[in-house]
Amino acid sequence: MIIILKPHATDEQIQHVVERVESLGLQAHLSRGSYRTIVGVIGDEAKLHVTPLKAIAGVAEVIPVLPAYKLASVEAQREPTIVDVGGVQVGGGHLAMIAGPCAIEGAERLDIIATAVKKAGANILRGGAFKPRTSPYAYQGMGEEGLKILRDIGDKHGMPVVTEVMDTRRVEMVAEYTDMIQVGARNMQNFSLLTEVGQTGRPVLLKRGMSATVQDLLMSAEYILSQGNPHVVLCERGVKGFDPATRNLFDVAAVPCIKGLSHLPIIVDPSHATGRPDLIPPCALAGVAAGADGVHIEVHNQPEDAMSDGPQALLPEQYAKIAAQISDLAKLLGKEISPLPGVHA
Amino acid sequence: MIIILKPHATDEQIQHVVERVESLGLQAHLSRGSYRTIVGVIGDEAKLHVTPLKAIAGVAEVIPVLPAYKLASVEAQREPTIVDVGGVQVGGGHLAMIAGPCAIEGAERLDIIATAVKKAGANILRGGAFKPRTSPYAYQGMGEEGLKILRDIGDKHGMPVVTEVMDTRRVEMVAEYTDMIQVGARNMQNFSLLTEVGQTGRPVLLKRGMSATVQDLLMSAEYILSQGNPHVVLCERGVKGFDPATRNLFDVAAVPCIKGLSHLPIIVDPSHATGRPDLIPPCALAGVAAGADGVHIEVHNQPEDAMSDGPQALLPEQYAKIAAQISDLAKLLGKEISPLPGVHA
Amino acid sequence: MIIILKPHATDEQIQHVVERVESLGLQAHLSRGSYRTIVGVIGDEAKLHVTPLKAIAGVAEVIPVLPAYKLASVEAQREPTIVDVGGVQVGGGHLAMIAGPCAIEGAERLDIIATAVKKAGANILRGGAFKPRTSPYAYQGMGEEGLKILRDIGDKHGMPVVTEVMDTRRVEMVAEYTDMIQVGARNMQNFSLLTEVGQTGRPVLLKRGMSATVQDLLMSAEYILSQGNPHVVLCERGVKGFDPATRNLFDVAAVPCIKGLSHLPIIVDPSHATGRPDLIPPCALAGVAAGADGVHIEVHNQPEDAMSDGPQALLPEQYAKIAAQISDLAKLLGKEISPLPGVHA
Amino acid sequence: MIIILKPHATDEQIQHVVERVESLGLQAHLSRGSYRTIVGVIGDEAKLHVTPLKAIAGVAEVIPVLPAYKLASVEAQREPTIVDVGGVQVGGGHLAMIAGPCAIEGAERLDIIATAVKKAGANILRGGAFKPRTSPYAYQGMGEEGLKILRDIGDKHGMPVVTEVMDTRRVEMVAEYTDMIQVGARNMQNFSLLTEVGQTGRPVLLKRGMSATVQDLLMSAEYILSQGNPHVVLCERGVKGFDPATRNLFDVAAVPCIKGLSHLPIIVDPSHATGRPDLIPPCALAGVAAGADGVHIEVHNQPEDAMSDGPQALLPEQYAKIAAQISDLAKLLGKEISPLPGVHA
Repeated sequence: MIIILKPHATDEQIQHVVERVESLGLQAHLSRGSYRTIVGVIGDEAKLHVTPLKAIAGVAEVIPVLPAYKLASVEAQREPTIVDVGGVQVGGGHLAMIAGPCAIEGAERLDIIATAVKKAGANILRGGAFKPRTSPYAYQGMGEEGLKILRDIGDKHGMPVVTEVMDTRRVEMVAEYTDMIQVGARNMQNFSLLTEVGQTGRPVLLKRGMSATVQDLLMSAEYILSQGNPHVVLCERGVKGFDPATRNLFDVAAVPCIKGLSHLPIIVDPSHATGRPDLIPPCALAGVAAGADGVHIEVHNQPEDAMSDGPQALLPEQYAKIAAQISDLAKLLGKEISPLPGVHA
Repeated sequence: MIIILKPHATDEQIQHVVERVESLGLQAHLSRGSYRTIVGVIGDEAKLHVTPLKAIAGVAEVIPVLPAYKLASVEAQREPTIVDVGGVQVGGGHLAMIAGPCAIEGAERLDIIATAVKKAGANILRGGAFKPRTSPYAYQGMGEEGLKILRDIGDKHGMPVVTEVMDTRRVEMVAEYTDMIQVGARNMQNFSLLTEVGQTGRPVLLKRGMSATVQDLLMSAEYILSQGNPHVVLCERGVKGFDPATRNLFDVAAVPCIKGLSHLPIIVDPSHATGRPDLIPPCALAGVAAGADGVHIEVHNQPEDAMSDGPQALLPEQYAKIAAQISDLAKLLGKEISPLPGVHA
Repeated sequence: MIIILKPHATDEQIQHVVERVESLGLQAHLSRGSYRTIVGVIGDEAKLHVTPLKAIAGVAEVIPVLPAYKLASVEAQREPTIVDVGGVQVGGGHLAMIAGPCAIEGAERLDIIATAVKKAGANILRGGAFKPRTSPYAYQGMGEEGLKILRDIGDKHGMPVVTEVMDTRRVEMVAEYTDMIQVGARNMQNFSLLTEVGQTGRPVLLKRGMSATVQDLLMSAEYILSQGNPHVVLCERGVKGFDPATRNLFDVAAVPCIKGLSHLPIIVDPSHATGRPDLIPPCALAGVAAGADGVHIEVHNQPEDAMSDGPQALLPEQYAKIAAQISDLAKLLGKEISPLPGVHA
Repeated sequence: MIIILKPHATDEQIQHVVERVESLGLQAHLSRGSYRTIVGVIGDEAKLHVTPLKAIAGVAEVIPVLPAYKLASVEAQREPTIVDVGGVQVGGGHLAMIAGPCAIEGAERLDIIATAVKKAGANILRGGAFKPRTSPYAYQGMGEEGLKILRDIGDKHGMPVVTEVMDTRRVEMVAEYTDMIQVGARNMQNFSLLTEVGQTGRPVLLKRGMSATVQDLLMSAEYILSQGNPHVVLCERGVKGFDPATRNLFDVAAVPCIKGLSHLPIIVDPSHATGRPDLIPPCALAGVAAGADGVHIEVHNQPEDAMSDGPQALLPEQYAKIAAQISDLAKLLGKEISPLPGVHA
């Protein structure tokens, strides 16, 4: 950690900073310049993270040199984590192809969609039972009834399933029915929820918040990891931008950026990132080209009747086309779409 | 609602759109231009909000003319809402002065701070018992023990109290101890939590999310209002920006913008908006000048020992100075800082 | 164009709007709802663009249905434009590979770099003679001397050359020495400069401004096109974002978004978009996967001695590796890197 | 300056960094931690600004401790600069009230508007003769004819005048006719233009770019100052934000932030910051409350006939009202609106 003092910091102030650092069992190295004094601190930086040194008179800036996350960092683990989602591997060259409708709307419709996406190459089935809707008057999801349908259809097709949980009181129930629990963008910093899903030990799909930095995302992953649950898959799904041309701004550079900082797999969600069916296929390819460990796409057979987010869903035939392109691109990159459990690649 | 068709939409597509609109019991007015056809829809727009018209082939854009919030809108109520927080009025010319430490750290320290801010003119005491920390290794708050201390110190000084709740399972407990429940920026779209605090009937301080639009904020207020709880105070506390010069970007224009859309009171929080003690006083004044119904400021008597957010806290003497300036400015604007319950202005 | 009136607009106000519309030779279609009145306008929308209807009392919103650019739009031209840059085709499946140092620093060094990038597959040589530096004390470029060197080295290797112009007074000189003129991000809305480069008739590389929307970029292209110069290549090079993890936010979705709106070629510049050598290769691939018509990358043989932007330059061997990957990806997508003039693919 | 090395930097790499630092005549202080090594550099940091140390193998981060601007900094001058604009003082407690139409549309109309704003308290008359329009088809301004009108009407009312220049070739002409030259937001990083206006010696109104950080703005001011022209007034006019509720995001905190970094006066422009007449008065007051040295507001007597930006103009009577409120607020803050030349306060 580096402490930069203000231009006119007094000797007493500098001395006080040094004493605070040493009182924590750390060493302080002073560099006195003509304009400013800098204090380099050597020792366990974690002790300093919890001490508000910046509030000390005369201190201008406190710059950490260690990231605040530990378990999520490449320093903690050099090899990439491979998360096993009900028999489907995600990470380390194995691509997740998560597909399905925004909301579960009934067994028959989900069955139709699951049949189509499985045939196209999807390996994890998604569907929302609890929907985070900006309007209290919008469709809120089928609840536990939906979870049962998702489990049944997943089992019928031999596909692992993932669904979102929004409430700490529902985590246990969702964990019971599914192979992977999704924490949505709006709850990425719902720290109670992160702690709770961490305690289930189930694989977690952690979506990046709309205004979360890469560091924020890794800190939220750290919450889950610190509960003893190492099965975390990150997901870039677009951040807030100033251009109304797309719903969100797809931050594709976050994929290789995170690969350099963390061993955790990261997938992309071009459906939410762009909000436009015409942009989903090119952005899905872009994500895989940038190194993503999978792609999350919403698919619906009758978008104009969908209970939620119909306008951004791909049709099954559109999904089949992009899935084939992703498969080709994966081979070019020396990767592969993970086979379903019991199926050999 | 206005439906704009794509430049080359076919007659069948246009006809299909008209049929969908009429099947909902609404009227469709067609304007056929040389380049595009537009459909104006007359009737209860709410029926359309839940229908994914944009997913229909040939539709380019669907533009609502009614806001999606109802209870929060000026159309629902012309006069400004005045929220009563334990006897302190907020809104309609009555300013809230919410002050206190970021985290409750013990009864003695809270007592010292409460004494100081009350003397300076604060009328609601704040303090966190459950802290939303980006790091799982950071101080997480005193929990229920902290709530008891907050209640005791508030009662001792005759000040209503406000604290944040983060978990649906703690809402009842927090409501029991406090006069106002805060929903923090990171939970602004935690819809389960919004529903739960709505059901308590307690006044709610709803902070704007870091990437929430004004419309998003009002939709989250609508969640609370739709549970039958009209006691909502909004809070602008800075949004994400690109300039590292300040912690967040203080969106002061959101204050008059919201005044034009909603009857709910809105206060400002320059502490979180700027993250810098030197910017808090000018931004507090700016907020009041722009029409805010109050100011939320973190105050600590020993920032360098604070358990949380010490570097952004004002010292009691700094708070006293800005509180006096706010009082003068309020008078210039024909407003006043609300007196404490039992005290006459 | 659609004019939405305010909820309580009076009959006189509505009448006044209709009269203004009709006075321009256009038709007004009224849709009176219970809540709001909407006026659909039929006729030449351009007449309305220059009339401040929104300033009329009672008008809430004016929504254009036609884009404000014409020559740049897919409506004006269905087939993709292919720009010829000194014999190298850009667009329509032909990829530009623009490479070279940030600044021209001397003939010998440029020769070394040109030799390397040509061998790797680059087809256009870049180098700055006039540098837009944020600091007046930083290296400002070699000026005309640099232009001569660029021309000489380009000729020696049979490569067309591109360089940036910043000042209307230098446009003629730059056009004389180069095959393509670059307008940098900071000058994307320097309308005098756009007009001037439009008048040269030379191919223009128009970089997207850091806070420019897709529509802003196309409007700036329209400035050039409206001067009778159809040879415009757009360039996505990152926009301002809130995350300090990368220098800018690489908006890869802008590539397919623009492909849907305009016939102009668009390339990507991952060097400026990310500012980090480790992120340039994955983002270059992502751009091509998303449909870009080329890639602009800064290359330097001795980054630590570079006069400008050394830290973000790729080494020649790094460039060779990514260029080979781009070539493979292009083939997968049914495209190809354009051969140099006189060379057959 | 502080150089942070990568976690696994080798001894050779560290040694190489130290040698580079020392070869520039500076001292390097090494702090070797268990995780990282830090090099504190003592001496003239300017030498390092032009050396790409970050490109050296093993270097993770280079952190300057001195701002890159010098002449603009509070270190260069402690007392606030007071700029004299044709006899009107701006800065140091003296407020500029710049008002007038967006574009000059003729002598008669400008005379009417000038009469009104002067009566209301404005002390500098504005009007655009060269308009930076996003569309090449929009009204581009009256050119030199407009400059003459502006000068004449200013003289008639005894008001200094300000207008925007966009092209280096017009700087001399604009300087001849006006008391203050405006550099618009879109040209804030048009470094050729900055250099040129710097050489005129005329007061410059430098507007903040839509994606410019506070540091970027001060660096652009430095360009002007470094030409020997100390008469720079900065202007906050809103930056790009994600919320379509307002045209731009009014960054009111930039005002006190800049006051802490620079001696230059800074005013606010709520017209462009918000783009909405109803938000201009509250944001004007907010700006002054935050410490601004003046307010720039567009006023038009017939907004619905304005050639440019009519919808965001205040009517003269609206301007008179907010000007009176600003005057009252200024007094509360111990400031005053500057009197016109020859008039005593």
